[in-house]
Amino acid sequence: MQAEIITIGDEILIGQIVDTNSAWIAQKLNAIGIRVKQISSVSDDREHILKALKEAHERANIILITGGLGPTKDDITKKTLAEYFGVKLVENKDALANVEAIFRRLRGTTFTELLDVNRLQAMVPENCEVILNRNGTAPGMWFNYDDTIYMSMPGVPHEMMYMMEDSVIPKLKSTFKLPHIIHHTIVTAGEGESYLAQKIADIEDSLPPYIKLAYLPKLGQVRLRLSAYGDNEDFLKERVEDFATRITERVGSAVVAQEDIPIEKAILNFMGERGLTLSTAESCTGGYISHLITQHPGSSKVFFGGAVSYSYELKESVLGVKNETLWQHGAVSEETVTEMVQGALLNFKSDYAVAVTGIAGPDGGTPEKPVGTVWIGVANSEKTVTKKFSFGNKRLQNIERTAIAALNMLNILLKELK
Amino acid sequence: MQAEIITIGDEILIGQIVDTNSAWIAQKLNAIGIRVKQISSVSDDREHILKALKEAHERANIILITGGLGPTKDDITKKTLAEYFGVKLVENKDALANVEAIFRRLRGTTFTELLDVNRLQAMVPENCEVILNRNGTAPGMWFNYDDTIYMSMPGVPHEMMYMMEDSVIPKLKSTFKLPHIIHHTIVTAGEGESYLAQKIADIEDSLPPYIKLAYLPKLGQVRLRLSAYGDNEDFLKERVEDFATRITERVGSAVVAQEDIPIEKAILNFMGERGLTLSTAESCTGGYISHLITQHPGSSKVFFGGAVSYSYELKESVLGVKNETLWQHGAVSEETVTEMVQGALLNFKSDYAVAVTGIAGPDGGTPEKPVGTVWIGVANSEKTVTKKFSFGNKRLQNIERTAIAALNMLNILLKELK
Repeated sequence: MQAEIITIGDEILIGQIVDTNSAWIAQKLNAIGIRVKQISSVSDDREHILKALKEAHERANIILITGGLGPTKDDITKKTLAEYFGVKLVENKDALANVEAIFRRLRGTTFTELLDVNRLQAMVPENCEVILNRNGTAPGMWFNYDDTIYMSMPGVPHEMMYMMEDSVIPKLKSTFKLPHIIHHTIVTAGEGESYLAQKIADIEDSLPPYIKLAYLPKLGQVRLRLSAYGDNEDFLKERVEDFATRITERVGSAVVAQEDIPIEKAILNFMGERGLTLSTAESCTGGYISHLITQHPGSSKVFFGGAVSYSYELKESVLGVKNETLWQHGAVSEETVTEMVQGALLNFKSDYAVAVTGIAGPDGGTPEKPVGTVWIGVANSEKTVTKKFSFGNKRLQNIERTAIAALNMLNILLKELK
Repeated sequence: MQAEIITIGDEILIGQIVDTNSAWIAQKLNAIGIRVKQISSVSDDREHILKALKEAHERANIILITGGLGPTKDDITKKTLAEYFGVKLVENKDALANVEAIFRRLRGTTFTELLDVNRLQAMVPENCEVILNRNGTAPGMWFNYDDTIYMSMPGVPHEMMYMMEDSVIPKLKSTFKLPHIIHHTIVTAGEGESYLAQKIADIEDSLPPYIKLAYLPKLGQVRLRLSAYGDNEDFLKERVEDFATRITERVGSAVVAQEDIPIEKAILNFMGERGLTLSTAESCTGGYISHLITQHPGSSKVFFGGAVSYSYELKESVLGVKNETLWQHGAVSEETVTEMVQGALLNFKSDYAVAVTGIAGPDGGTPEKPVGTVWIGVANSEKTVTKKFSFGNKRLQNIERTAIAALNMLNILLKELK
C-alpha cells in the first residue's frame, strides 16, 4: 500500500515555515503499514495542483493533501479538487453546522449570523465525504475516486493531527486490508550505533524475516525499533517482546526506556513512581536541562528546580562552591562540578542532583581545556559520580550533548536502586 | 527564475527526520530573487529519482538536490545522475584529495590508505563541476545541462549549508542575471498582526509597486519584512530604509530589532553595548528563558544566571520570597513575582532581572487562577514592573509565550534608558 503527501501553500516554498506535518503523517502511516512514496510541496496555483494530483495518482493508492483550505482568495485547494474530479461545489449541512458552532463559541453572545466568507467554508466538492474538523472551520474531505483515496486536510498542525487520529487512520484501516504491525522501541543513551550493532549482532542475525530492526540515532541516543508485520497479532507481539527482552539484557545499562519517550521523561516516570526528587546546577547548559524536564506535565512532582550559575558569584552564593576551588582548579573542573552537585543536594534539599560545567564555545577555550570540555556530576546522599567529556566546537550541539550525557549519568545512578 | 528542491532518501519518507534543509534553502534562494516552485522528497529508487528530475526540469531552471551521497549501497544519487545525463562516472582528483585530507584529520597518525569504499566517494559524473565539501567526504556536483542548473549536495545539514553559502549562492548569482533584492526586517513583539496592520495601513497603502511588505507572525512576535526588487541597488536601499523608519516610528515600543534576530539576541546586543547585566528567576518557564539567552555566543558577558524555582522552598531559600507571601497570595501572584524579581536583583547582583510565575498546565488550575495564568516581573534598581497574562491551556505554548512576553517587558524597560 503506497501513499503520497501533497502540501499546498507558499509558506513552505518561501521557507517561512518548516514542513513538520509531513514527517508526522509519514510516521503515522508507517505505523499502520502504509509506505510513503513521495512528499511534494506545491504552490497555491491551479495548474500546479492539478499536475501534482495527477502525478501522485500514477504512483500511489492513497493521497493525503494538507493546506490551502483557508477562507482567503489565495486558498484554492477545494475549487481545484472539484475541477480535478469534474464535480460542483455544494453546501454541506454538517460542515455549516460546525462553522456556526465554532463562531458561536468564539463570539459568544455577540454572535448574530455568518458572513458570506464564513459560509463558503461549508462548500465542498459534491463527491466528497465530509470529515468533521473539531478545531477549526475548514472541513476535511475524503474522496474515493478511480480506486484511489484522496484526503484533503487543513495545514494547521493540531487541526490536521486531530483529524488524522480521530478519523483518517481508522478509515484507512477499515478501507484497506492492512497487515498487523507491532512496534517496540528500546531507547538507549551513551553508546554509539556501531557499538550497539556489534553487541547485538547475533540477536539481529537470528531475527525472522517478518521482524525488522531499525537503528534510529539522535545526538547521544540511539533508538532500537523492532517492527513485526503479519496476520497473527498475538503471535507477533509475543515474538517482538521476546527479542526486545534479549536485546535489553544484552545492551544493559545503556537502556533508558522500553517505549519511544525522551530520556528525561523516562527519568521522571521512574523517580515519580518512587517518590524521589531532583534538582539541577547548570553552567554551560544554561537552563536547557531544566527546560527539558519541565516541558513535561507533572514534572513539578519530581523537580524542585535549580540554579543556572553562569557567573563565579552565583556558583558561590547559590551553590556554595568555594572561592578557592574556582580560582585553583577553574570553573570547568572535577573539583568544581563536585561542589556544584553536592551544593545542589544540600541547598535545594532534593534526593538527587545533576551538575554540569563546561566550555560551550565558540570562545573561552584554552590549550588545556579546549571548547567542548565538559565536567558532569550526579549525586544522591550516598554517592557522587563525576565524568569528563570532550565534545565538539559547536555551541548548540555541545549544550544538547551535555544535557543528554548528564541525564544518562543520572539514569545509570538511579538504576542502582533497582 | 524558478527553482525546485529534491530531497533523496527514505529518512524523510518514513518520518524519521523532519526536512529542515528545504526551508533553509528556500529562504536563501528567495533572498536572492529565486522562487521555489516545488519541493519533492523521493525514495532511494533509481526510476523514482529519474522521474523526479524529469518532472522538475519541466518546471524549473535550477534544480537543487540533497541526499543520497553516502558511501553505502542504498545511496544511488550519483549513479542515477550519471544515467540521467548519459555520462560515465570518473574519479575526480580534487574530490579524492579532499577525502584523503579528511581521513588524515580523523585518523591522525594511524592513517595508512583509503579503503575502496572511501575512494568511491571521489567518483563523479564526468560532466559535473566538483564543489568542494569542507565538512565531509561527499563532493558537491554542479551540472549545466539543457539550459538548466542541477546541483547535488549532501543531506547532512551543516555540509549542505556551508556549500550553499560558500559556493552555490555565489555561482547562481554569477550564472543568472538576478534582480537586486533589498530586505529589511523589523522584529516586533507584544502586538498582534491585525493590530499592526491597522496601525500602519496608510504607510502600507503608499508603498510603491516594487516594495512588498510581509507579516511573519510567530508566537507573540510579528516580523515585518520589507522587500524591494529592481535594478538600482542604492535607490532601493534608500527607499526601503525610508519606509522602515516610518513604520518603526509608528509602531513604537513594540519594535524589538531592525534585523531578523530573536528578541533575546536583540536584548543581549543592547545590554552588552552598555555593560549591563541580567539575571532570571523562573518558575513556570522552568529554565526556558535562561536557555534562550545562553544559546547565544557571548551571552556570559551579560547573563549572570538565575534560579529555576519550581518549589516553594527554592523560591524562599534562593530568591528570598517570604513564606507568608506564598501562603497568603499563592505562588502565582503579583506579590510573589515582585519578591522573586527583587530577590534576583539582590541575590544575584545584576543590573536587571526577570521573574515569571504561572500555571503552565495541563493541571494545577483553579477557578480563580485557571491554567495559563502567568505573572511576569522585570526590574532594575529603580523600577519594578509587573503584569498579569492569561494564556491558553497548552503547556509548551504557555512556556514559550511566557518567555517571549517576559523578554518583551524587559526590552521595554531597557528602552527607557535611551
